[in-house]
Amino acid sequence: MRALVLDMGGSHVGCGLVEDRTVLETASIDTVAGSLEALLPVFVTSFQELLRRAGLQTSDCSGVVVGFPGIVDARSGSIRSTLDKYPDACDLDLAGWACEAFGLPIRLENDARLALMGEAFAGAGQGIDNLVMMTLGTGIGTAAMIEGHLLRGVHACAGNLGGHFTVQMGGRRCKCGNIGCAEAESSGWALPEIASSFPGMANCSLAIAANLTFADVFQHAERGDATALAIRSHCLDVWAANAVSLAHAYDPEVLILGGGVMQSASTIVPHIQRYVAEHTWRGMGEVQVRAADLGSSAALIGAIPLLMEHFGDVKN
Amino acid sequence: MRALVLDMGGSHVGCGLVEDRTVLETASIDTVAGSLEALLPVFVTSFQELLRRAGLQTSDCSGVVVGFPGIVDARSGSIRSTLDKYPDACDLDLAGWACEAFGLPIRLENDARLALMGEAFAGAGQGIDNLVMMTLGTGIGTAAMIEGHLLRGVHACAGNLGGHFTVQMGGRRCKCGNIGCAEAESSGWALPEIASSFPGMANCSLAIAANLTFADVFQHAERGDATALAIRSHCLDVWAANAVSLAHAYDPEVLILGGGVMQSASTIVPHIQRYVAEHTWRGMGEVQVRAADLGSSAALIGAIPLLMEHFGDVKN
Repeated sequence: MRALVLDMGGSHVGCGLVEDRTVLETASIDTVAGSLEALLPVFVTSFQELLRRAGLQTSDCSGVVVGFPGIVDARSGSIRSTLDKYPDACDLDLAGWACEAFGLPIRLENDARLALMGEAFAGAGQGIDNLVMMTLGTGIGTAAMIEGHLLRGVHACAGNLGGHFTVQMGGRRCKCGNIGCAEAESSGWALPEIASSFPGMANCSLAIAANLTFADVFQHAERGDATALAIRSHCLDVWAANAVSLAHAYDPEVLILGGGVMQSASTIVPHIQRYVAEHTWRGMGEVQVRAADLGSSAALIGAIPLLMEHFGDVKN
Repeated sequence: MRALVLDMGGSHVGCGLVEDRTVLETASIDTVAGSLEALLPVFVTSFQELLRRAGLQTSDCSGVVVGFPGIVDARSGSIRSTLDKYPDACDLDLAGWACEAFGLPIRLENDARLALMGEAFAGAGQGIDNLVMMTLGTGIGTAAMIEGHLLRGVHACAGNLGGHFTVQMGGRRCKCGNIGCAEAESSGWALPEIASSFPGMANCSLAIAANLTFADVFQHAERGDATALAIRSHCLDVWAANAVSLAHAYDPEVLILGGGVMQSASTIVPHIQRYVAEHTWRGMGEVQVRAADLGSSAALIGAIPLLMEHFGDVKN
């Protein structure tokens, strides 16, 4: 089975042509997460190029799949809500677009849920029925599978808002409306503001303020910068505290960590593994913490199990 | 259908004889949550008395049901773990006991999950497929139903550890092993220690230290005691912050609040409803916060749907 896949991130969109467990061709499109409609012609051109490179036609594909950073009801094929990314997404007729542009059906899914499906199908979650995925990026995306069933929920939110559990009462206000979310306390968009609250920031080599990234923080921490070490420690602690909540919420065998920051997996995974082992309910089974296997391909490959899924009883 | 039911709390055990949606007879047995084995003969005597009062025999009942405050695998009929309540429970042959004492099969379930089943069957959750229950008592018990499926999970923990989400990084150490759990920050067992950290405590009429209860705090707060008001406010804030996490975890239509403290439902429900409405993900459906309808009968009545449940594919 082949699919044309869009993995919509906050700063770029991954386009992929996927066959079963293999990504045949990819391209990356830089965006500012503005109008989705304005990007549709760009996607068409990109997919045509990927197909040309692979020597394939649209008719060789079973469908178009979109992984979207918001609340997506895969069963009704609708994007239900988005915070500040692609604000026009809820109102677009993406099924009409896919049909017109490629003559193909479309399936939409939340990006973290799609990544979990990919990791379960061909990555770090293969053969495991009880999985939680936590993707650390611009925001914190999560998804959960319990006893082989992907959680979706009546408003399509179940499993996807695990970055918005309260980890710090009275903490930072999150874009989602909550206070002290894991995402508000440690994610890409919140990082510059978080860092600016550290006392050493003004005199530190990290002081590049508005564009500060996790890559900057981890690199400077590696070099021994005290402020970078303190910020890194704070971020690791937030992710670890939230990992315990996720373990307590969904009872997983394996917690998979993904996102760009996992280039520093050798620091992150042991820290979170240790904290989870020490702080989860004593009578629970051990929760294994693993780095995602598929990196940015996870959501692309997740398109295949999503297309294979049978939605018998579509609600809405 | 009739059942003999034990609802095992930390300070007392509710014994009930239940018929469909009606509790025919009840008795309450005070305990210290010590040896469960030592209580078994007391339960037999109590059930015999309830049956006598109702003019019924054990053979008029379909089974014995136990709601237990710990991790319980209903499908394999085992108590998997308990913190400090009834430490011998995991090793007892309760099926053998029920068979010998009454000639009846037994089913075990987590107490909060059983209460949710009761509220879904005959209480505040009737007709709703997406429910979360949060029981505020000695500890904080939770349970979740998503799209009509009761969450259980591979280690039988799913949905039940929602009182052990981290709400306060660097907060109080919980009995479960985690730090800053909702339960450690606002529950019956933690209340005396929490209260003692409030500055006004030493000079306040509440200063009865080790035995302080939520009933004390709410009563003194009603009378305008400043320290009691501050403690109450703290506890309400913890429950509200955790309610947002539960909403984000399980995507419920209705969050049901239970436990003895709900005698103050008129203060608690509006506070949590307001906080949840203001702080859950903006694109989610509205989560209704309701007081449990069935009070201490919820877990008793939950025995009926538990006995009716068919465990087709028993794991373990």
